[in-house]
Amino acid sequence: MIVVQKYGGSSVADTDRVKRVAERVAQVKRDGHNVVVVVSAMGKTTDQLIRQAQEIAVIPPARELDMLLTAGERISMSLLAMAMHELGYTARSLTGSQAGIITDAVHGKARIIDITPGRITEALAGGHVVIVAGFQGVSRDSKDVTTLGRGGSDTTAVALAAALRADVCEIYTDVDGVYTADPRICTAARKLHRVSHEEMLELAACGAKVLQVRSVEYARNHGVALHVRSSFTYSDGTWVTEETDDMEQAMISGVAHDTGEGKLVIRRVPDKPGVAARIFTALADANINIDMIVQNVSEDGTTDISCTLPLADGPSAVRLLEDLSGEVGAEAVGFDEHIAKVSLVGAGMKTHPGVAAGMFSALSEAGVNIEMISTSTIRISVVVRDDDVETAVRAVHEHFGLAATEVA
Amino acid sequence: MIVVQKYGGSSVADTDRVKRVAERVAQVKRDGHNVVVVVSAMGKTTDQLIRQAQEIAVIPPARELDMLLTAGERISMSLLAMAMHELGYTARSLTGSQAGIITDAVHGKARIIDITPGRITEALAGGHVVIVAGFQGVSRDSKDVTTLGRGGSDTTAVALAAALRADVCEIYTDVDGVYTADPRICTAARKLHRVSHEEMLELAACGAKVLQVRSVEYARNHGVALHVRSSFTYSDGTWVTEETDDMEQAMISGVAHDTGEGKLVIRRVPDKPGVAARIFTALADANINIDMIVQNVSEDGTTDISCTLPLADGPSAVRLLEDLSGEVGAEAVGFDEHIAKVSLVGAGMKTHPGVAAGMFSALSEAGVNIEMISTSTIRISVVVRDDDVETAVRAVHEHFGLAATEVA
Repeated sequence: MIVVQKYGGSSVADTDRVKRVAERVAQVKRDGHNVVVVVSAMGKTTDQLIRQAQEIAVIPPARELDMLLTAGERISMSLLAMAMHELGYTARSLTGSQAGIITDAVHGKARIIDITPGRITEALAGGHVVIVAGFQGVSRDSKDVTTLGRGGSDTTAVALAAALRADVCEIYTDVDGVYTADPRICTAARKLHRVSHEEMLELAACGAKVLQVRSVEYARNHGVALHVRSSFTYSDGTWVTEETDDMEQAMISGVAHDTGEGKLVIRRVPDKPGVAARIFTALADANINIDMIVQNVSEDGTTDISCTLPLADGPSAVRLLEDLSGEVGAEAVGFDEHIAKVSLVGAGMKTHPGVAAGMFSALSEAGVNIEMISTSTIRISVVVRDDDVETAVRAVHEHFGLAATEVA
Repeated sequence: MIVVQKYGGSSVADTDRVKRVAERVAQVKRDGHNVVVVVSAMGKTTDQLIRQAQEIAVIPPARELDMLLTAGERISMSLLAMAMHELGYTARSLTGSQAGIITDAVHGKARIIDITPGRITEALAGGHVVIVAGFQGVSRDSKDVTTLGRGGSDTTAVALAAALRADVCEIYTDVDGVYTADPRICTAARKLHRVSHEEMLELAACGAKVLQVRSVEYARNHGVALHVRSSFTYSDGTWVTEETDDMEQAMISGVAHDTGEGKLVIRRVPDKPGVAARIFTALADANINIDMIVQNVSEDGTTDISCTLPLADGPSAVRLLEDLSGEVGAEAVGFDEHIAKVSLVGAGMKTHPGVAAGMFSALSEAGVNIEMISTSTIRISVVVRDDDVETAVRAVHEHFGLAATEVA
């Protein structure tokens, strides 16, 4: 059996924690399995390196920033290899490049385009524990070192699990699984035993921070089963698996929330073809990621268009649209920072009517006003005032009895 | 013209110093030259990484220690590349592996066996400043990351200068050149303008710390001219060049001293064939580097053998020889830590008789007793009490008028 394990920065924050991770890995070896361990940089190392870069350059060149940041995993992976040796196991640490993580050349957010794991399989065959630097790869064309973006180690682990046809991919983090809601907000939140890739994707995209969205996408596309669990306990975490027909399906998996977005409102734009296209093409060209988009019904030949986007992009989006407002004929552009998005996710929604109605009633009874609504087949998202976010999460969580029911 | 520059750890100790190095490099570009910069790890980074390794493993596996330590140059080189960009120059940082530094597989003290500088010449052709991680390479057979040992960045620079047929190889350090003696001991010491590879080799081997012995050896073998200078001033340093017939030859280049060795004395060993071979084979097998060896004339069929070796190796050498003393018939083994070696180096010695006599007279007049003597064609070394080292250096320096004469 091949086990891929990924340990995040908090799990290897100092040399003592590195030793504890080594003991966990040793246990898997004692159980007779092959292990490939993916590690992030220790604790705040990446942030420290970024700070040094900023002392030198306002906008550090992306190629060199990637070269710099990849020093972080190099340190954690070699220390972990030493800790394995100290426990009597031979280990081989491999950089992203050595491990065959081939990417495109987009520094800072490269995408994996191929995995050539020859050195990994060779080292496994030699009985070694293989330790791979997370978050990094090498570009196919330029042979330059690349990074996969924040949280990219999750994707490294999933991609290796897929390429090696691993039996399981364990994602170790500082929480012990995926919850029906954020336990810091909703004390009644319950750990999910099992969730489908699709549901996890929606949860991650809607603010659940436990897994990087891209890693879940990769896992879904390649059928990789993930086990999200804590590196500080030995208890079972949450399994993220393919949806199967015989899987006892909970109607609702959980409630996610996100306070990292703001609402852009463009008032009284002429209600005619091409206007929305014009606006959103301009935003896309400026590399601004839009989340929800809502257009109200037309009154007197004009309409309001609202969309949500990351708080950090608010000012530049407003500037952009003000420049454009003469051309598209909008009356006013505003950006509201005080919103929050609350999302209800569940594969069972597809076959259970009335879920949306139930969510809206619960919010209404709790006195929470809904400003925007957006849905997918397995998700309903609403935008509310940011003051209301905790009330909203608790109300929805309780309405659907998420604390009480046991998920398959 | 191709210029190779090497900056040591103190020259890139923090981000401000990295910026100052960038300005020096920019000057060379403005002068219209191609530049390849070799950097060490910042300040005490290597020591900090070694400390972390020691927190985890008593004897860290050498492969993983090399992987760990090479993170140091990765950080300094990418920061320097960013600083170049900030000044308006494009730069490409390259790891030892990317720069084509091919070594054997002896982790921790690998030797360069080939240089394949394709990526360097390509980047130079593209107008980029090339920044190469010093001290590191990649093993030809295992493709593992290797390091060249302490001071290995000097060797990286010399090897690249040779492979690229650079016009000059500048070694930037925290002193401004090679002196006729250590200025901290001998205030009259004078900076040498020029010294031959052979003389520099002897000086480095006899305790002058400004250049790694191996880098000088490499420079000699490949005819690379070195310019040793300070990164804190713009004044000329010391040139280390091939000895040429028309080179106005100073009789003496300088006085070096070394207090890092002790003297092993093996008393009253039988004066018969094979005994010395037995002793020094045993020491060599234990990886103990012997420097000077002196055997006294025989009295009553026995003799005393003395040798100098690094202080750290004293205890294990004594243990080894005590185990062996029955077999070889030695009467006693002792280790004297309180010695110092003082060496006089000069290519002109070959053709000037009486240099040894002059050195011994100077020491005798200064009241310094000589315990051991060893010579090469261009060097005379003596072992004295460590208390006497400063007196000895000053006396010899003055006797040969090193402060007064101007070296070619």
